Amino acid sequence: MGSPMAHNLLKAGVDLTVWNRTKTKCDPLISLGAKYKPSPEEVAASCDVTFAMLADPQSAVDVACGKHGAANGIGPGKGYVDVSTVDGDTSKLISAQINSTGALFLEAPVSGSKKPAEDGQLIFLTAGDKALYETVGSLLDIMGKSKFYLGDVGNGAAMKLVVNMIMGSMMASFSEGLLLCEKVGLDPDVLVKVVSQGAINAPMYSTKGPSMIQSLYPTAFPLKHQQKDLRLALGLAESVSQSTPIAAAANELYKVAKSHGLSDQDFSAVIEALKSKIQHSENQ
Amino acid sequence: MGSPMAHNLLKAGVDLTVWNRTKTKCDPLISLGAKYKPSPEEVAASCDVTFAMLADPQSAVDVACGKHGAANGIGPGKGYVDVSTVDGDTSKLISAQINSTGALFLEAPVSGSKKPAEDGQLIFLTAGDKALYETVGSLLDIMGKSKFYLGDVGNGAAMKLVVNMIMGSMMASFSEGLLLCEKVGLDPDVLVKVVSQGAINAPMYSTKGPSMIQSLYPTAFPLKHQQKDLRLALGLAESVSQSTPIAAAANELYKVAKSHGLSDQDFSAVIEALKSKIQHSENQ
Amino acid sequence: MGSPMAHNLLKAGVDLTVWNRTKTKCDPLISLGAKYKPSPEEVAASCDVTFAMLADPQSAVDVACGKHGAANGIGPGKGYVDVSTVDGDTSKLISAQINSTGALFLEAPVSGSKKPAEDGQLIFLTAGDKALYETVGSLLDIMGKSKFYLGDVGNGAAMKLVVNMIMGSMMASFSEGLLLCEKVGLDPDVLVKVVSQGAINAPMYSTKGPSMIQSLYPTAFPLKHQQKDLRLALGLAESVSQSTPIAAAANELYKVAKSHGLSDQDFSAVIEALKSKIQHSENQ
Amino acid sequence: MGSPMAHNLLKAGVDLTVWNRTKTKCDPLISLGAKYKPSPEEVAASCDVTFAMLADPQSAVDVACGKHGAANGIGPGKGYVDVSTVDGDTSKLISAQINSTGALFLEAPVSGSKKPAEDGQLIFLTAGDKALYETVGSLLDIMGKSKFYLGDVGNGAAMKLVVNMIMGSMMASFSEGLLLCEKVGLDPDVLVKVVSQGAINAPMYSTKGPSMIQSLYPTAFPLKHQQKDLRLALGLAESVSQSTPIAAAANELYKVAKSHGLSDQDFSAVIEALKSKIQHSENQ
Repeated sequence: MGSPMAHNLLKAGVDLTVWNRTKTKCDPLISLGAKYKPSPEEVAASCDVTFAMLADPQSAVDVACGKHGAANGIGPGKGYVDVSTVDGDTSKLISAQINSTGALFLEAPVSGSKKPAEDGQLIFLTAGDKALYETVGSLLDIMGKSKFYLGDVGNGAAMKLVVNMIMGSMMASFSEGLLLCEKVGLDPDVLVKVVSQGAINAPMYSTKGPSMIQSLYPTAFPLKHQQKDLRLALGLAESVSQSTPIAAAANELYKVAKSHGLSDQDFSAVIEALKSKIQHSENQ
Repeated sequence: MGSPMAHNLLKAGVDLTVWNRTKTKCDPLISLGAKYKPSPEEVAASCDVTFAMLADPQSAVDVACGKHGAANGIGPGKGYVDVSTVDGDTSKLISAQINSTGALFLEAPVSGSKKPAEDGQLIFLTAGDKALYETVGSLLDIMGKSKFYLGDVGNGAAMKLVVNMIMGSMMASFSEGLLLCEKVGLDPDVLVKVVSQGAINAPMYSTKGPSMIQSLYPTAFPLKHQQKDLRLALGLAESVSQSTPIAAAANELYKVAKSHGLSDQDFSAVIEALKSKIQHSENQ
Repeated sequence: MGSPMAHNLLKAGVDLTVWNRTKTKCDPLISLGAKYKPSPEEVAASCDVTFAMLADPQSAVDVACGKHGAANGIGPGKGYVDVSTVDGDTSKLISAQINSTGALFLEAPVSGSKKPAEDGQLIFLTAGDKALYETVGSLLDIMGKSKFYLGDVGNGAAMKLVVNMIMGSMMASFSEGLLLCEKVGLDPDVLVKVVSQGAINAPMYSTKGPSMIQSLYPTAFPLKHQQKDLRLALGLAESVSQSTPIAAAANELYKVAKSHGLSDQDFSAVIEALKSKIQHSENQ
Repeated sequence: MGSPMAHNLLKAGVDLTVWNRTKTKCDPLISLGAKYKPSPEEVAASCDVTFAMLADPQSAVDVACGKHGAANGIGPGKGYVDVSTVDGDTSKLISAQINSTGALFLEAPVSGSKKPAEDGQLIFLTAGDKALYETVGSLLDIMGKSKFYLGDVGNGAAMKLVVNMIMGSMMASFSEGLLLCEKVGLDPDVLVKVVSQGAINAPMYSTKGPSMIQSLYPTAFPLKHQQKDLRLALGLAESVSQSTPIAAAANELYKVAKSHGLSDQDFSAVIEALKSKIQHSENQ
């Protein structure tokens, strides 16, 4: 995800310095004019604003707070924007470390996967230092189509969980509809078309429906991540005693799909959890 | 619903004859040039194609098969298109009666409520005599934006149930998201905006979200009808042993909402089923 | 079920006349002293009280109201006790027919399967004419260990549905526990023992747990009947807008089990619906 | 819980030394012959085997591993038996600390609440050092009616979670049945009686049913603890990708009950989560 975002910044003429654990991954960007520094610390020391995009919470903490991490190079007048998707606690930990140097921190997880990243169509769910939000607004606008400022650190992560909770339930419900069509002799392709015309039309259905009908699940968002987000959202709901029976039922289906070995396929593979084990089922 | 559909036919210059149980409801159409006949029988006798739009299965049967019903006036070379939403069995009953006169029958329930009807943006889910489908295609195109031919009588009703099943689950899931936002201190209006930008954006969320946040549910599609459709869809799924745990969980919420006296409000009032009974809840 | 019940009446010295569609099934009873009549009509004509035990609603109606049915031979001063498990509507239909002859009617579905029938340990859930309930009390006591009078016809059927609804949910929950034990490395046989010692001990768990652990489901109560009862109970709940999310979730599991071809196995086979499709699952 | 257990040991003639954070709570036991020591450290130093019964994981850790905790007084040849209900991780932490002194450790959470504790009818789910299990067997038999040895530390906690998961689902299902009876005009007291006669009879139903019908929930096991155990059990199931839709649906009901302010009432108060908000509901 980080690479197409950086491309878009370069294309817009932004003065960019890059770093990656695997230096060769930076080469295409360097060939397009990006500078390179050998550690997050040196990137942060040489730039006004540092963006971090990491795959998981532990990496996000390491790059921000670890040995040669950004916190060692950053300081007053500078900003750190973490666009990784991490839980609220991790975000607060990084925020505290960055703020302790006098620098500003913005949590900015993105909604959108690879294609929107390439097209500069991401959505940023930001929270933290509002001054930094305003400073980097034009940069976010290069990489995304919209941005939201949500207040205290942790709120960006929470909003993303709520969105992904709804997404997971919708995909499970859509799967029920596709299979029900098949079982009663209706063409599921027509369901995709009918849905695409009405009040419940969501881009996700048109994008993924046709491949789901062919039992193909090319990974855009891994099923195990969708299940993890449902689990975290259920935890969030539990912490405030909010009943979420739909999300709870959906989570069970993603767990079934995981137990079927589909963790690394696209989350639309949840449809497999609703299929019968045997082909010639006896329905009485 | 029937009135705006007739308006659109008249505006397009179609030669139209109307009937309604309450004659005064026909007056606006008559003033625009429609003819009037005092019974479905006489409408069917004087027209090539008769469209029926009734509120419930019993009325649909009465108008087609009852005393002075359309079946008494119809015959070979004519067609009967029922655009009411009825169950498959009712549709088959009417179809058999119409076909027994030598006339053709098309089941054509619409997806879309009052506004799309006015704007000629309905979606027709048709099934039955394909020749009649082709005959009335241009008329359906005046009243709607798309039409699907689904094969045997009963398939139109079944497809509509599947669509409404997904719709009911989506609304329940969206309700969970809105309430979870509120409980954790996020602005639910922002959730509506974020959702509207991404892969799960559905027109329904943007239309109904803002009023749901204000606990207002102006009726476009009554909650009791949404619950009935979920129940019928669950019955359809059961008849083919298709597991639909999301729809089953959603149905329970609509039942709760009904038991709270919300049957005649919009189906978005399902959100009330997820709210705590007491204001100052004790969350431990 | 009827045969062991009749045996117990004979053993107690009751003057008994029997009939079965397949006469040979009556032979063991006849050899023990039972009389035989060639139709329900003649049984009803020659006895003070007629008991009916049929496999399904249609047979119950046929035997009571059909050609040569009991209603033709019954009349004032006689009683008809239907111990079949039928829905409330069927029960009301038979009741009306019997009452119209001047005879009394008692609906008396039994709780308990083959073994309790043999041991005279059935539970009778009766409803209808209270005078008949009192007349046949001593006979019910021979065949069962307890009897309940529940008021209007239909109430016996309804009570049985509620009991079976709870039973279906309990079995699904118990299945979750057995499989969870296995997955985390606990011995499910120990779970059966622990459960049998405490507040949640139910005879069903001790009876069926050991065979469930071996994936054996010898049929005492067919899974398809358990699923049908859940469906009817959900319908009953829906008719009064009572939310029953546990029963709804359980019903989905029985549907899955049916789609796996387990309809005719014992209802404890619902555990199969919760097993992973693949052996070496990838859990991430 | 600790006090009645200690009483039973004293009554059986066991040489007992006690400690409690609030010394006056020990007075009744001291008057019956128990010795007293002013810290867990001194209890452990002066006894062969130390039993700990604490209300929550944090207290269990404090008493075992804190300042003046048991680990400071214990050593080779001695044993530490923690009968508190804690999570597996806490149990492992305490186990490691105790074992590091050369002493043996046994995790032994109990199944059963206050009344079984008084009656010496508890069930011990033990795990850890088997030699200690054998040493204390006769003492466990004084306090309980049965004991299970489950292997590695953590397994006692896990087994208890599975049992409580089933218990929580059963109570939710039973609540559905009681309310469904009321709504359709059946006497829920009769349901309690019918259930008590058959295959699904569990002591819990007979004990709690009558008060549930009167909307009374005197606390034996607090609802918030039942909900916590469901949450932990769902977490356990998730860790091995075991689908548990019934437990997930039940958990949502306990969350609703918590949001209604019922956290400290008995877990049977979950029935309130299924009641309509308004009295004169409109059921359509």
